[in-house]
Amino acid sequence: MNGFIAFCAKVHTDRFRWFFMGVIVFNAVILGLETYPAVRAGYGEILTILDHICLAIFTIEILMKLVVDRHRFFFSGWNIFDFLIVAVSFIPGEGTVSIFRALRIFRMLTLFNKVKKLKMVVSAILKALPSISGVAILLLIIFYIFAVLCTTLFGEKFPEFFGTLQGSMLTLFQILTLDSWMSGITRSVLKEFPNAYLVFVPYVLITSFIVLNAFIGIIVNSLGEESKEESDDDYKKEFAKLNERLANIERALEARDKKPSD
Amino acid sequence: MNGFIAFCAKVHTDRFRWFFMGVIVFNAVILGLETYPAVRAGYGEILTILDHICLAIFTIEILMKLVVDRHRFFFSGWNIFDFLIVAVSFIPGEGTVSIFRALRIFRMLTLFNKVKKLKMVVSAILKALPSISGVAILLLIIFYIFAVLCTTLFGEKFPEFFGTLQGSMLTLFQILTLDSWMSGITRSVLKEFPNAYLVFVPYVLITSFIVLNAFIGIIVNSLGEESKEESDDDYKKEFAKLNERLANIERALEARDKKPSD
Amino acid sequence: MNGFIAFCAKVHTDRFRWFFMGVIVFNAVILGLETYPAVRAGYGEILTILDHICLAIFTIEILMKLVVDRHRFFFSGWNIFDFLIVAVSFIPGEGTVSIFRALRIFRMLTLFNKVKKLKMVVSAILKALPSISGVAILLLIIFYIFAVLCTTLFGEKFPEFFGTLQGSMLTLFQILTLDSWMSGITRSVLKEFPNAYLVFVPYVLITSFIVLNAFIGIIVNSLGEESKEESDDDYKKEFAKLNERLANIERALEARDKKPSD
Amino acid sequence: MNGFIAFCAKVHTDRFRWFFMGVIVFNAVILGLETYPAVRAGYGEILTILDHICLAIFTIEILMKLVVDRHRFFFSGWNIFDFLIVAVSFIPGEGTVSIFRALRIFRMLTLFNKVKKLKMVVSAILKALPSISGVAILLLIIFYIFAVLCTTLFGEKFPEFFGTLQGSMLTLFQILTLDSWMSGITRSVLKEFPNAYLVFVPYVLITSFIVLNAFIGIIVNSLGEESKEESDDDYKKEFAKLNERLANIERALEARDKKPSD
Repeated sequence: MNGFIAFCAKVHTDRFRWFFMGVIVFNAVILGLETYPAVRAGYGEILTILDHICLAIFTIEILMKLVVDRHRFFFSGWNIFDFLIVAVSFIPGEGTVSIFRALRIFRMLTLFNKVKKLKMVVSAILKALPSISGVAILLLIIFYIFAVLCTTLFGEKFPEFFGTLQGSMLTLFQILTLDSWMSGITRSVLKEFPNAYLVFVPYVLITSFIVLNAFIGIIVNSLGEESKEESDDDYKKEFAKLNERLANIERALEARDKKPSD
Repeated sequence: MNGFIAFCAKVHTDRFRWFFMGVIVFNAVILGLETYPAVRAGYGEILTILDHICLAIFTIEILMKLVVDRHRFFFSGWNIFDFLIVAVSFIPGEGTVSIFRALRIFRMLTLFNKVKKLKMVVSAILKALPSISGVAILLLIIFYIFAVLCTTLFGEKFPEFFGTLQGSMLTLFQILTLDSWMSGITRSVLKEFPNAYLVFVPYVLITSFIVLNAFIGIIVNSLGEESKEESDDDYKKEFAKLNERLANIERALEARDKKPSD
Repeated sequence: MNGFIAFCAKVHTDRFRWFFMGVIVFNAVILGLETYPAVRAGYGEILTILDHICLAIFTIEILMKLVVDRHRFFFSGWNIFDFLIVAVSFIPGEGTVSIFRALRIFRMLTLFNKVKKLKMVVSAILKALPSISGVAILLLIIFYIFAVLCTTLFGEKFPEFFGTLQGSMLTLFQILTLDSWMSGITRSVLKEFPNAYLVFVPYVLITSFIVLNAFIGIIVNSLGEESKEESDDDYKKEFAKLNERLANIERALEARDKKPSD
Repeated sequence: MNGFIAFCAKVHTDRFRWFFMGVIVFNAVILGLETYPAVRAGYGEILTILDHICLAIFTIEILMKLVVDRHRFFFSGWNIFDFLIVAVSFIPGEGTVSIFRALRIFRMLTLFNKVKKLKMVVSAILKALPSISGVAILLLIIFYIFAVLCTTLFGEKFPEFFGTLQGSMLTLFQILTLDSWMSGITRSVLKEFPNAYLVFVPYVLITSFIVLNAFIGIIVNSLGEESKEESDDDYKKEFAKLNERLANIERALEARDKKPSD
């Protein structure tokens, strides 16, 4: 039993980590190959078997970690993420349903928990999320307002763009990204509603400005932290040196104050 | 009467604020549901009644605030904003005129005055506006110049794009956002006027560069304020400490200068 | 004669400046109105006369400035700019040639020399130009390389996009702005040259990255200057205060060094 | 022999550098002229001869540098770059194969090694590359995941966009640049798969956010270095001055401590 736990503990060694990384990449390649009809026709079964083996290895890895770390395993968000991705693969479904099979490729995301650099990059990006949460909510409200407005005003005449509330939201997201916002959408609407630009131009101006500000918010945030850390190190040393020197002088003066009285 | 004012004063309590927030969201959902023809057909009257009740509650809220705060109510721009939005809802109009009904959804903007985080985000974004006012005026002038130029040159042959001054301005705004500026507009114009790129390429370069500079202006502004506040706090303390110490030494020296003469 | 010069000197007073600003705006409105065929048909002659009067006033302004400032007039780039714009208006040309008439609207640019805020904004933007000169040259070289490459490779099959060197440059500029670069251009070319993405994808990546770096260059530059000026003021004062204090102590010590020897 | 080496050493003089720069530009102009069928028809042979002469001069330059610098020549990445570009020109190929002839224009890149300003700009841009390497890898993984997903899901119905893995990658790159991502691609796919927006909208949000963060990463990096260098210079001097002064005071106090005991 102890030997078994000792073996499981090896799951955290570099050698095992490299092995599991290899399996992830190998699995990704297999799923990539499966997209080619010719390959699928010729080697479909082998690929499916190899994929099952990969899934088995992922499962074994999770189980080994569970044996070693037990409840602590779930302290890390990354582990929970891995656990869920592998767990989802076991949801029964008709084997040929393409959507479930297609989602297997997301297993590749477990790579983040294995490669330190990727983990850092993802963490850094996730850390920028809260600083735009306020702006995101604001944007959603403006989104909803314009979606209701556009559906009410243009829904009947332009069902393709503004037929339903969710359709309008999609179209408004398209306009936000400036993709054919004028050439494709506004110009069509203008033919029926010559004043429609009073809706779309302000919308573009407002949302662009908000997105811009979100962007600037992240920059200012990142820079604030960065600069604080950096210069603090440097200048604090300088200030410490000055303080040290002054302490010396003070001591020297004190010492002399006492001497004459001796 | 006092009891009435005491009741009105409750409008500023958190409980009431949450209640009014709920009403706003509820109203927004109703207006969203109304966009679906099927829902409108089946429950149209109920939704209209619920909408009227919401409007009534908004009105009562404003009245309560007016009773409590009186003229001070109008000191806050946010309150005036709320007041106008609710007031506009009472403008008589044929009940079925879609445009007036459509604008009701803007009531949702009163949420900004209720949710502190949203208020902060909107304030922050509005604060960035003045720093681009100069650039905005510059852009408008360039806009006008090119609009007159394009209408004069291309108006006759391309009435869809440059038929009128306002039409040209819309097209130039489209070009500013780079939406199909070449594929849709410039390539068409080039077929008639092979040198038209001498107008559009400089226009794209100039306006892009100006927008970029406005953007940078906001970043520099935000960072300037940010960094000043932050480091000022830290370093000023350090400088104060050094000054304190030096002052002590000066005093010590002065004190000793006097002692010998005693 | 002296009275005449004294009158001309008034050209620099605020009252005159406001008057000339008004004339510029008035002239811009006239040129805007002229773009409407209906207005041109009804009031064409009056507008032409008013335009001539405006031009006369601009000329008089320049002459007054020349009388007062003489050769110093040409020390300011802004003055030379105004001078050229007005001078160009006198180039004889068949009165109805639309291109020359169309360019009159550029007179509105003389507003920059009159409105201080605009002058500042334009100066700030022009100041950002040198910091991207290096990148601009780099971009031009890459532009030229890809233009020659694309014309040689795709010119024959896609004369509309890559028929001539200048045509290729225009198309490459379009790709740089990402307008229909894939949907319009690359997908067409891919049908004939399945490996054409080896040209366009690197081109998009390289030029985007360069433009981005130019952008960052300007930000870093602006921030550098900004922060230097700001903090210099603050901290230099603090350092001066410390130095002052130390000088006091030094003097005190020196003074005592001399006393005992008395 | 010595005279020969002395002559070769001149390759590093400004006069020679200017000459070689001239040859590069001249060669670029020739290759540009060759793209015009009319010019090629009339002067094709002359241009080919001139091009060969240019290549000969480039080869001589490399040889001269090799004679003077020997193995040190290969210490500079720029030299290796030049060497390879010229070497590639000698790869035998059917003279009329357009692709090889087309690539000659890349010789113009050797200009970077000659013009100091260009070298600096390119170096600065290359220096920004490592700071986005992590993000680039992350982006590639997300790219691959979505490519497999889209090929599996939409490949059969939309062979033009998602027929093969590499085709999907190209389409996903197009979506990343926001070119017709909705108007061209998503709207087509939505007609067959009404829930396809669940793939494309998250993809656009995620990749945009990642690209944005890469961008911010470069800004923060550049600013960090910049500000550190700048202020370090200024403030370190100030701190050094203070330290100097305090050291003097310490010495003075020490000296006096000794004096009385004499």
